[in-house]
Amino acid sequence: MLTRIDHVGIACRNLAAATAFYEATFGLTVVSRETNTEQGVNEAMLVVADSAAGASYVQLLEPLGPGTPVGRFLERRGEGIHHVGYGVADIDAALAAIGATGVRLLDSRPRHGSMGASIAFLHPADIGGVLTELVQPAAR
Amino acid sequence: MLTRIDHVGIACRNLAAATAFYEATFGLTVVSRETNTEQGVNEAMLVVADSAAGASYVQLLEPLGPGTPVGRFLERRGEGIHHVGYGVADIDAALAAIGATGVRLLDSRPRHGSMGASIAFLHPADIGGVLTELVQPAAR
Repeated sequence: MLTRIDHVGIACRNLAAATAFYEATFGLTVVSRETNTEQGVNEAMLVVADSAAGASYVQLLEPLGPGTPVGRFLERRGEGIHHVGYGVADIDAALAAIGATGVRLLDSRPRHGSMGASIAFLHPADIGGVLTELVQPAAR
Repeated sequence: MLTRIDHVGIACRNLAAATAFYEATFGLTVVSRETNTEQGVNEAMLVVADSAAGASYVQLLEPLGPGTPVGRFLERRGEGIHHVGYGVADIDAALAAIGATGVRLLDSRPRHGSMGASIAFLHPADIGGVLTELVQPAAR
């Protein structure tokens, strides 16, 4: 069902500073910058690796305000890893299969994610505290 | 410098239960089980994807006791994502380059990691709260 680790989502207070740090320290390259008002974040995608199955990214997330999910995460836990996103080939099929196991879906239908992907979040309380995202990338 | 996302390390209270959950919910397969007394964990590696650059894993970590790093993490934050591991081709060169940027190295020399890999951790306080591991896999 899972095709790869699509990304690690990292909550930061200052997107420009965090992006510059990952570029300088690890030699990563920004391939996308977006504001997602639905999710309440400014974000940057930095590519770690590309393969036939799709690329893997570090996703840096800066909240648009303190009342957003990432803003509340920063207040509660500080900067750090916020979630993990796994690649799937067919997000509708994956959601149906996972939902059938009893895991609660935060998104029962896919919505718009980074770089044109279709994404959906699963409930962290049902996955050992891990906020888990499924990502069906946009067709290349 | 980074070749891929090698793994996401997830702290859990019950390794057998967490492993069974990832197998049943996401169809992942355990490829290694180890006890690492140096790191104070029982662990399981579940493969998410394989590629020419190397595989990516979910690493489930159960502490050997409450005084271990993962045991203290569980007490402080509960179950969830503990760290991220990135693949590198040459861990000595990567540690030298990263150390030269001013990031503190928790391991100034590589040590034994999962599945025969050479690994080293970087200080999370210097990486935006993210406990970051470098992984040079064992030669295939």
